[in-house]
Amino acid sequence: MNTILLTVDAVVFGYRDGRLFVALINRKYAPFQGQWALPGGFVLPDESLETAVQRELREETGIQIQFLEQLFTFGNPDRDPRQRVVSVAYMGLVRPSDFTIMASTDAQDVAWFALDALPELAFDHADILNLAINRLRAKLTYEPIGLNLLDEKFPFGEVERLYAAILDKPFDRRNFRKKFLSFNILTELPEKAATEKGRPGALYTFDRDRYETLQREGFIFEIR
Amino acid sequence: MNTILLTVDAVVFGYRDGRLFVALINRKYAPFQGQWALPGGFVLPDESLETAVQRELREETGIQIQFLEQLFTFGNPDRDPRQRVVSVAYMGLVRPSDFTIMASTDAQDVAWFALDALPELAFDHADILNLAINRLRAKLTYEPIGLNLLDEKFPFGEVERLYAAILDKPFDRRNFRKKFLSFNILTELPEKAATEKGRPGALYTFDRDRYETLQREGFIFEIR
Repeated sequence: MNTILLTVDAVVFGYRDGRLFVALINRKYAPFQGQWALPGGFVLPDESLETAVQRELREETGIQIQFLEQLFTFGNPDRDPRQRVVSVAYMGLVRPSDFTIMASTDAQDVAWFALDALPELAFDHADILNLAINRLRAKLTYEPIGLNLLDEKFPFGEVERLYAAILDKPFDRRNFRKKFLSFNILTELPEKAATEKGRPGALYTFDRDRYETLQREGFIFEIR
Repeated sequence: MNTILLTVDAVVFGYRDGRLFVALINRKYAPFQGQWALPGGFVLPDESLETAVQRELREETGIQIQFLEQLFTFGNPDRDPRQRVVSVAYMGLVRPSDFTIMASTDAQDVAWFALDALPELAFDHADILNLAINRLRAKLTYEPIGLNLLDEKFPFGEVERLYAAILDKPFDRRNFRKKFLSFNILTELPEKAATEKGRPGALYTFDRDRYETLQREGFIFEIR
């Protein structure tokens, strides 16, 4: 009926110390041999798309993620020089320190690249990555994503740093703090942390249960 | 490498007189012969996914749409009883009166079904349709979609009717009107229309140029 091959690709963002990274693999085989690319590969006949992308990511990079969000399906007829290949792209957000990345199968190397220092990417992977960045930024305005990437206890400045890193633009910090705290999804802890100014600063923890309860009740999280 | 076939399916919503419809075809061939389904079919080796979904829609229903939005790719291994078929689903919103629908190729019939009077659907098309409805409702809160489905000149009540039909739930009409008009994307016309109460009522037109200019300037449309 047709001879279109199906692949999955994963855009895995890592957040650390105020910077956003993406996990890339170095291709062992042609085409684009020796070039950096998103981890991914062919879907096996009996596995779901989600199973396929988790398997490829684990095999090629050592990264294990429970949930990857489907992003978009890329199907331009000429996106692969070998033959027609359609790819379903997924994205996820992790803490790089949670994984020991290790290249295997079709990857001869794997590394975290800062978004402001990307190499040239194989295929149309730069387009896929750009779409993922835009989706991540859009999501941040209506979901408190990434709070699970912070330490268990954190000063509020860490939330600002996370948002600044993902949005990659300046924003009104005073209104941000006030708005964010008004959602009551961060719990202020009795203990304090030392700050650079010498005064003890407030520490917070993300109350996921409360966030989920509020969501079920129709609460709307929104940050601009 | 794999023997996965690739299809596209189209969820085309139609809006008319305060009601939302979806275009369905009746399948000419097995599996699910004689059952209603979304229009769609196999992607040809040399066409893009967008070209494929527009072609299938035109062939099976007579509906021609310039832009269909990619919705989600459905890839459960058992979603087609014949063999592994992965489908990329698209959605669009039209005015049924703009088309003369006509079944052809794999469709033996085509019809607009009201969303509250749907037949049983073939394959996992009920899941696809449900996802499309949720996406359409979500979009409505941050894009003034559907205004192009109204007549050139309309009383504001028509905008309320459109929103009520798509959201399918009651909402605060007074605040809605005030909020919507505050965006200044509707132009009040000098002429008036007769209303049921006998008083002449204001008529509006959608200022698409102004909406697009505002969007480029970072204006945020939002209705809850």
